[in-house]
Amino acid sequence: MFRATRTEGRGPRQAAAIFQATLDLLMQHGYDGLTIEGVAARSKVNKTTIYRWYPSKDALLAAAMIDREVLEKNTEDTGSLRGDLIAVTHQVIRMLTAVPSGKVATAALGGLERPGLAGLVRMFCAERMESEKPIFDRARQRGELTADVDPAMVIDLLAGAVWYRVLIRQTALESGFAEAIVDTVLSGLPRSS
Amino acid sequence: MFRATRTEGRGPRQAAAIFQATLDLLMQHGYDGLTIEGVAARSKVNKTTIYRWYPSKDALLAAAMIDREVLEKNTEDTGSLRGDLIAVTHQVIRMLTAVPSGKVATAALGGLERPGLAGLVRMFCAERMESEKPIFDRARQRGELTADVDPAMVIDLLAGAVWYRVLIRQTALESGFAEAIVDTVLSGLPRSS
Repeated sequence: MFRATRTEGRGPRQAAAIFQATLDLLMQHGYDGLTIEGVAARSKVNKTTIYRWYPSKDALLAAAMIDREVLEKNTEDTGSLRGDLIAVTHQVIRMLTAVPSGKVATAALGGLERPGLAGLVRMFCAERMESEKPIFDRARQRGELTADVDPAMVIDLLAGAVWYRVLIRQTALESGFAEAIVDTVLSGLPRSS
Repeated sequence: MFRATRTEGRGPRQAAAIFQATLDLLMQHGYDGLTIEGVAARSKVNKTTIYRWYPSKDALLAAAMIDREVLEKNTEDTGSLRGDLIAVTHQVIRMLTAVPSGKVATAALGGLERPGLAGLVRMFCAERMESEKPIFDRARQRGELTADVDPAMVIDLLAGAVWYRVLIRQTALESGFAEAIVDTVLSGLPRSS
């Protein structure tokens, strides 16, 4: 749907400037304040050039977010389900606490009432979820997980805990938070009796 | 800080109309579009009357949200930690999926970049977290939990999973979701070997 056009690949020569202007405007003015006209002015790239590659604001924003590594994806095999889930959780933490991706995420939340951005966020989450499936396939092969465990529920718990803590509760993440939530999801809470 | 003035208690006679107008405007125009002038016009209550009771937009919004049960709190003892946590999770689900509270929550997310609303959301979460502490005290007394378990981490996992699923991923909650995430947090994921 929204295909990524990486700077070095297919795409206008000035892609890097266009993407930077797109994210700058999103962070400064929010989703509603982001326009292709504004991106053209800021990046000094002709509006028609931008429209040729990105037919809509959402297509442009999707390309910019993917290109600028706002949505880092890395599901390398660490050798264990625990290691893989900690790596995924650290990715979410980096995405939400780093500049500019954290600001982009907050700006994206601000646009959830707009169908365009809501669809974009939904699509990114679906794509991320898809890319995380191999983690669960590997875990099943290792005997670390039964077949009936829903990967989406596990990701909702881990990614949700980070989003909720960082963006909603706005409370600092203590070191070891990723490990603590992964261990809870894998092994449950300790009982005293 | 932001003291709630319930309709039946202290507060202007026209509190119900003021609160309804406040939430209507928030849902229709977002946090930025909400003004005390707008509330006065919509509720047909004199602006100075509103200002006398609610010195700021945030104070008014806090009072309206508390009064209109947007933030239902109920931490009655169900007899077990599992039952208590399922009840809390169902509350979060109701809050985010019911009208108008779900729309209010989305509108609140849209204002997280504004210090006023961000502070309000943080305060509500802190208050909620405080009201949920007895659940964990009771669980410790029953021997269901060791003393070192951080209640905030447990709530981050459960409330976070619901927020992430409903508002960020925008995917339907299957029935049994609350029970599934509570059971995972309490007992971990099943291993096949």
